Formats: sequence, structure tokens, C-alpha cells
Amino acid sequence: MSIGLKKARAVIRATLSKGREMGLSPLSVVVLDPGGHVVAFEREDGAAPGRFAIAHGKAFGAVMLGMPGSAQMARAEGQAYFMGAMNGLFGGQVVPVPGGVLMRDGRGRLAGAVGVTGDTSENDAEAAVAGVEAAKLVAEA
Amino acid sequence: MSIGLKKARAVIRATLSKGREMGLSPLSVVVLDPGGHVVAFEREDGAAPGRFAIAHGKAFGAVMLGMPGSAQMARAEGQAYFMGAMNGLFGGQVVPVPGGVLMRDGRGRLAGAVGVTGDTSENDAEAAVAGVEAAKLVAEA
Amino acid sequence: MSIGLKKARAVIRATLSKGREMGLSPLSVVVLDPGGHVVAFEREDGAAPGRFAIAHGKAFGAVMLGMPGSAQMARAEGQAYFMGAMNGLFGGQVVPVPGGVLMRDGRGRLAGAVGVTGDTSENDAEAAVAGVEAAKLVAEA
Amino acid sequence: MSIGLKKARAVIRATLSKGREMGLSPLSVVVLDPGGHVVAFEREDGAAPGRFAIAHGKAFGAVMLGMPGSAQMARAEGQAYFMGAMNGLFGGQVVPVPGGVLMRDGRGRLAGAVGVTGDTSENDAEAAVAGVEAAKLVAEA
Repeated sequence: MSIGLKKARAVIRATLSKGREMGLSPLSVVVLDPGGHVVAFEREDGAAPGRFAIAHGKAFGAVMLGMPGSAQMARAEGQAYFMGAMNGLFGGQVVPVPGGVLMRDGRGRLAGAVGVTGDTSENDAEAAVAGVEAAKLVAEA
Repeated sequence: MSIGLKKARAVIRATLSKGREMGLSPLSVVVLDPGGHVVAFEREDGAAPGRFAIAHGKAFGAVMLGMPGSAQMARAEGQAYFMGAMNGLFGGQVVPVPGGVLMRDGRGRLAGAVGVTGDTSENDAEAAVAGVEAAKLVAEA
Repeated sequence: MSIGLKKARAVIRATLSKGREMGLSPLSVVVLDPGGHVVAFEREDGAAPGRFAIAHGKAFGAVMLGMPGSAQMARAEGQAYFMGAMNGLFGGQVVPVPGGVLMRDGRGRLAGAVGVTGDTSENDAEAAVAGVEAAKLVAEA
Repeated sequence: MSIGLKKARAVIRATLSKGREMGLSPLSVVVLDPGGHVVAFEREDGAAPGRFAIAHGKAFGAVMLGMPGSAQMARAEGQAYFMGAMNGLFGGQVVPVPGGVLMRDGRGRLAGAVGVTGDTSENDAEAAVAGVEAAKLVAEA
């Protein structure tokens, strides 16, 4: 089960909408498929130019390690060199903080991941979860 | 003058719509700002997973060299080692074929670039131009 | 609003002049546009050969993250692995210490960034701010 | 003998001035020392954002190979794979076309290199030579 463009758009729109509702800084949101490949991305006006890379790093790390951002952060807090090694392994494309969220269907199968950046990592993750659930997928944040 | 998210969405939707109208293979479309940074991207269902990189390479090369895909291809045909060097210079992020299209506002200022991939390079470029013009920008293909 | 060559020169000259006035070690100063691309650079005689890369890394990180060097350093002090991940994400081009200064126009729009290196990070940043203000831009250090 | 900042500025100003006199497109000019490290750079308004990398690649290749752009181009025309290998060897930082010019003092010692880009390679080289000679150095183009 792989997320398609229609659902990816739904995740992005609902995430951005949640960000506006929470009064967050401009957000950037990427949706990856279960292979870690980009399906869709949007960066709100006013966000820094590097936000694609950060959003992508959160979601890509989640897919490649099978571990959402919060779990990666716990690992980084306890064993920083391990997450540093993961970062090197995947060409620098691993950002181990909340905001990288795995998406599953109702039967627990991976549908992809969403990466959100722009506000605090915790707020990024909260908006991401809202986006995933609005698209009727299950979020693992 | 930098393209914002609203216009970027318009470019993408109109490009995809043109692709459907022309009966093309699934398309992937990226919109970059004048600094070469991703504003928005969408990949249609059925497109190969590497399509983000190809769309990005077409648009990124156009921005960095100030030269659309068709001009890059002409240069590559006449002086292949030069475009090879450009590819090395920009970390492999230069794809010198049609489908990388510069976008300008009515006063000739760069607004960004769009990169389209999925069908033949010529069809990719035709869809891109339609997308840019639908957003009331001037296309340099 | 993007800084042009004339203002970039003004920033560099005033930064170097401030460095002489403060009696600092030889400085290197880069000015980037809002997309993170080099507009101008000067390295004073006696500075080490790697100074371009350091100045660039300070300014580039500031643009890409939308965060000046002091804020990056605070983040690095509190969450080293996060700034390590940023470094990996941007190809090693992020140097999270003072001396990377965002430049805005009077309406708050990003004009670019300046990166200064050669003395202590704090002195680098002080000279950078003087340079930015001499060019009638607003410094976010 | 290594070029200092004062002479580097003279080379850049005279190169840009020659470009204006010849009616060329906006130019970008880098000056490297004999170790291939950046001393100074300026990009004229209107030049594409990737011009630093191209100017740098022309000058850096000239220093690292001890061979100006025209000689590199002759080699590329005759043996493209060799210059492709050089490009790979030096991290993509070799652009084998005219516009990379070695600078020597009156006794033939290397002072550094200048790299110019923005117009045709031949015009770039002509402006570079004028810049080097205006600074009372000997150009090997």
C-alpha cells in the first residue's frame, strides 16, 4: 500500500491548515512513499529556502530507519554517535527530531511518511499528525 | 520577484492538466524559486520513483545556468564535456534536456523555474509551458 | 529584495574597515543573496586559505535555516546532534557560530546574509553588524 | 609570489570594466591564489546564481592542472574522458573552457588564477586577460 498523489495532497493541505489554526510559523511539508521517494511537497511563503531539505530529512530518516522522529530523537539523546552514523550512511538525509511521521493504513501497512518543519519540532509533529489523520491514515509520530 | 506557493500550485495543476489533455505518461512537476530552492512538487501516480530528481535537475540547471533545457541540450550536443562539467559542478543536479523552463514576470524578472518529466522531453516542455502561461507568467523553454 | 553588487561591496568594505579599527586578525567576508548564492567575497592578506569556506558556511547556514549564527550556536549547545544533522543535510556547508548575519531591508524582507571569519566568533559578528549597518541594511546577528 | 587582496581587486575591477566596454553580458570574476584558494570574487547584477561555481571551476582547474582554460579545452576536444576524469578527481571543480587564466609575475612565477564567466568563453577570456594585464601581471589564457 503506497500513498498516491490525491491522499498526499490531502495530508499536505490538512497539515498546513492545522498550522494556520495553531498560529505556527510558515510550514514546509513533504510526503514520501514507502520507498522514501517524494510524492508531493509544499513550502509556505516566508519559510527559509532550506526547508525542503529539512522536511525531506525528517521523513526520509523515518522511512529508511522505520522509526518516527521522536524515536530517532530518543536514540540521538542517548547515543548521539549512532544517529550521526545514520546521517552519514544516508548521505546526510536524516534529521532525527519530531516532525518525521510514519503513515500506515488501517491494517498497519506502511503507506509512506510525512516530514514537517518550520516551527518547534513538537509543533511540527502535531501539525503532521493532524494532516495524516485528516487523510484517514494512522500516524506514528 | 519570487514565485509564491499559490502561483506554484497553479503552475503544477495546469501542467498536469495539459499532460492529461495531451494523453502523456504520468508527469512529475517541480517549481523552484529564483534561488533554485523547491517551492512545490507533485508526482502523478504511476511515475517512476526517481522522477523527483529528474524534474529537479531540469529546473535546477535552468536556474543555476540561467539557461532553459533546450539551450542546455544544444550546448550538450555541441560540447558534451562542457555540460558534463556543469553536472559535476552542481553535484549532479543538472539535466540538460527540454522540460526545464524558466519563468519570468511581465517585466522580464526571473520568478523561478519549473521542471517536468515523465514523457518525451519535448512533450514535458510543452506541458510545462502551458502550466507557466496558465499562471500568467512568461515561459522561456 | 536581493542585495546587489554595489551594496555587497559596501558591506565588505565597512566590515573590513571595522576589523582594522578593532585591531582584529585578517578577516574574510562573503556576501550571499537571499537564495544563498555568492555575490562577493574578499579575504585579507594573511588569512588562512580555508577562510572562504568558513565565511561561506556561516552565511549559507544562516540563509538556509533562516537563523543567524548566534541562534544556531544556541541550538548546537543544547542539541548538538540537530546541528550535526543540518551540517550533513547541506553538504557540510553550515558553520553554527556567530559571524553569520542575516541582512534585511527596512521592511523586514531578507536581502541576503554576510559571513565573517578570522578573529573570535564574537568579534567576527561585531564587524559584520557594523558592515551591514554601514550599508543601511538591518542586521540579525 | 602570491597575489594579495589589493591586486585581486584590481584584476576584478579591470575585468568588469573591460566587459562593460565590450558590451558583454553580466560577468562574474573570481581570483584564486597559487594554492587554488579564493582571494576575491564579484558577480555583477543580472548574472545567474550559479556563476560563482562556474567562475571558480575555470580558475581552480587552471591552478590544479597548471593549464589555462584554452589548453584544457584542447585536451577535452581530443580526449573528453581525460578531462571528465579530472573533473571527477577534483570534486567536479574543473570547467575546461576559456575564461580560466593563469597569472604570473614578471619572473614567470605563478601568482594565481582568474576565472571569468557570463558571456561566450572567448569573450570571458578576453576580459580576463585585460584584467590581469591591468594589474601588471602576465596572463596565460
